[in-house]
Amino acid sequence: MARDFEDHCWKDVVDQEILEIYEPYRREVRVGSRPAVLAIDLYNKAYRGGNRPVREVNRQYSGSCGEHAWKALEPTRLLFAAARAAGIPIVYTTRHAETDGVHSTHRRVHGETEQLYHIKEELAPMPGELVIYKERASGFFGTPLIAHLRKLGVESLIVCGESTSGCVRASAVDAYSYGFPTVVVEECTFDRSLLSHKVNLFDLHHKYAGVMHVDEVIAQLDGRARDRDAA
Amino acid sequence: MARDFEDHCWKDVVDQEILEIYEPYRREVRVGSRPAVLAIDLYNKAYRGGNRPVREVNRQYSGSCGEHAWKALEPTRLLFAAARAAGIPIVYTTRHAETDGVHSTHRRVHGETEQLYHIKEELAPMPGELVIYKERASGFFGTPLIAHLRKLGVESLIVCGESTSGCVRASAVDAYSYGFPTVVVEECTFDRSLLSHKVNLFDLHHKYAGVMHVDEVIAQLDGRARDRDAA
Amino acid sequence: MARDFEDHCWKDVVDQEILEIYEPYRREVRVGSRPAVLAIDLYNKAYRGGNRPVREVNRQYSGSCGEHAWKALEPTRLLFAAARAAGIPIVYTTRHAETDGVHSTHRRVHGETEQLYHIKEELAPMPGELVIYKERASGFFGTPLIAHLRKLGVESLIVCGESTSGCVRASAVDAYSYGFPTVVVEECTFDRSLLSHKVNLFDLHHKYAGVMHVDEVIAQLDGRARDRDAA
Amino acid sequence: MARDFEDHCWKDVVDQEILEIYEPYRREVRVGSRPAVLAIDLYNKAYRGGNRPVREVNRQYSGSCGEHAWKALEPTRLLFAAARAAGIPIVYTTRHAETDGVHSTHRRVHGETEQLYHIKEELAPMPGELVIYKERASGFFGTPLIAHLRKLGVESLIVCGESTSGCVRASAVDAYSYGFPTVVVEECTFDRSLLSHKVNLFDLHHKYAGVMHVDEVIAQLDGRARDRDAA
Repeated sequence: MARDFEDHCWKDVVDQEILEIYEPYRREVRVGSRPAVLAIDLYNKAYRGGNRPVREVNRQYSGSCGEHAWKALEPTRLLFAAARAAGIPIVYTTRHAETDGVHSTHRRVHGETEQLYHIKEELAPMPGELVIYKERASGFFGTPLIAHLRKLGVESLIVCGESTSGCVRASAVDAYSYGFPTVVVEECTFDRSLLSHKVNLFDLHHKYAGVMHVDEVIAQLDGRARDRDAA
Repeated sequence: MARDFEDHCWKDVVDQEILEIYEPYRREVRVGSRPAVLAIDLYNKAYRGGNRPVREVNRQYSGSCGEHAWKALEPTRLLFAAARAAGIPIVYTTRHAETDGVHSTHRRVHGETEQLYHIKEELAPMPGELVIYKERASGFFGTPLIAHLRKLGVESLIVCGESTSGCVRASAVDAYSYGFPTVVVEECTFDRSLLSHKVNLFDLHHKYAGVMHVDEVIAQLDGRARDRDAA
Repeated sequence: MARDFEDHCWKDVVDQEILEIYEPYRREVRVGSRPAVLAIDLYNKAYRGGNRPVREVNRQYSGSCGEHAWKALEPTRLLFAAARAAGIPIVYTTRHAETDGVHSTHRRVHGETEQLYHIKEELAPMPGELVIYKERASGFFGTPLIAHLRKLGVESLIVCGESTSGCVRASAVDAYSYGFPTVVVEECTFDRSLLSHKVNLFDLHHKYAGVMHVDEVIAQLDGRARDRDAA
Repeated sequence: MARDFEDHCWKDVVDQEILEIYEPYRREVRVGSRPAVLAIDLYNKAYRGGNRPVREVNRQYSGSCGEHAWKALEPTRLLFAAARAAGIPIVYTTRHAETDGVHSTHRRVHGETEQLYHIKEELAPMPGELVIYKERASGFFGTPLIAHLRKLGVESLIVCGESTSGCVRASAVDAYSYGFPTVVVEECTFDRSLLSHKVNLFDLHHKYAGVMHVDEVIAQLDGRARDRDAA
């Protein structure tokens, strides 16, 4: 059963006055038709230093989301499995380590750095799945993502990944602008700052996308997989 | 004298742990070279119901930012005066009331509704100043804004307007993506939700733009106006 | 019956050597699934001076396509009728007379000039049909066209209008880039220069779109209208 | 001394009637301020089969521009040398061989195919020069080119490369849309079809860019290099 529209992680930071102001946004939230999963920046760099508090890992590994990244690993693995079982394409974004020009040598450090932007092994793309290389926060900016979604016949998006207040938000806002009904999966997004995580999900939920819990998303995808098998 | 990098409105909601994580973003923030002011959605709709709490005005006037809008009126008027004195272009965004297709009649209600999206009189564009009509949050999406900025020779932006968590943020993120060094003026941006206002300014300050106080921005613009007059 | 792939207006200017080089582009060309008609710049300005040679009308009416515009009027009217009968949306583009800034007075000349960019009466949009205002050649550049097509569920395009070597070509190239299978209707496009008309249709046909004769397009649209009525 | 505005390769295919219609486009054409060279798709694939007629090389090497590519090699080399001497950045475009998804194996054929899209050795980028990977005709579509030009402070473009009727035209039209004054270098652009080459340069010259001869462009760049050295 679907939980209440405001039954989300931001409950402890958003007060009653704000909820009253945002009351008109209340609506049913569902995965749209012909969806794709858009998996934002699930690269190794976000997991460095291991399953520990961000403040600790961040001293050595700038940009790591620490325990928030690790906590989202299993829900995201389950989300991907459900999407693949339902025949729903997964499109990844990541970046190249250096994008400013041609280099005269292929130093060893380049290979090491590039590895930081490979998708984490447990969530890695399967053969044929698309990886979009971007240079800005949004997966749409300066990339051919919109053209690929058009060619895949995608009509709505399921967004996950990191960071909630960075590339996830920028991508979800652009998805809305391009006219894709979009769902953001709460347990499969993460950030270094919990406050920014919560408030950005709140903003997205009311203005641009529907924030859903991973179990609800997976239940809907499983239903589609069953419908497809029965057909 | 410039205040501390974190001496901003988010001080009471962002804790020490997060500030430590974001310490590497600390830098000097200044208005860039050849700037334009980008004034987001300063239309009548945001001020309806008058200088009262958002919760009160919002019951009757959906979308009004109430007292937050009115509080930003005088600082914004001063910002615009300083920009014009320094010969810095102001580019406005707003929207049309209806954008979905051709209408067979020009009903009177149409004119009344359209008036909601006229720029508030105290801040209205001067002859020759550019107004961009948009249909999405970002002033760049689905508009010729980037082409006009290019033709004006604009190389950096000063962003103000509303709402901080909606069109201001989306426009500032896109400005960063396009490569414009961008300043967001704290006292000249506003939102219905103070929490979203603060956290979005925090996000922007660390990731995409520099949040500056209006007195600092005006002081820098006045300096340029003097330099220009002396030349 | 479909004519040969190269049975088009460019036959008298493209020689055998070029046709041999372009032989690998030979393929079947059809209207795609879930199409919209994209009607480019069918505004009064293109018809000024009447049904006379371009060289003559152009002396007085800069930008008029003269007899080429008038010749395309009836085929385009029939194309629009077939599209509407088949429930296929028509999206128009045009422009505003002046786009550089706010004007202090509404001079009468402004109204007269604006009238130049109204869609020609015989082809005018019906209530509810969408008109996109653009400032550049392509209907996609600096406009929300892509978002509207996404929201309408459009998956392919049928392009007509003027000029073949200007806004039609630029729009068709962008349509291809965004991933829309696109048909250009030969008899419903026109230009001031016949040579540019022919060579641009040749380029489009081989690289970006399929050029079809209007009778073939209408026959396919009529078939869809019958299928729809029978369903 | 600058030659006449219409003293270009299209003289033998564009007749007097068309020239009269296009007379109002006559103007002085110069390299703009703060230019960059945009070098479109100067990759090995365009030169395969050697300095022979396109019809011959094309049988074995689809996409080769044969003798037209080889003829442009020396002028382009000189153009690049003049640009570098004047401190003008060169930005290249090319593509990846395959862009549709992740591959499970790195087959040897992949490396061979990728080599087709390396820039031809004589024209190869120097360390630090930017290469933009694109999937569509225009160097701007689905790429971060606009952001890089903004960050480089580029205000105008000098376009060369191939093909005139494909990626060069699409890139020059987009450059115009974004507001960059643009010059296209006649002897440094090429195509498989001479007719399309000529008519596309004619279209570009009158609507979107100024077509200049390479000796005129180099003379202007040399002048800037001297001014710079003297300063």
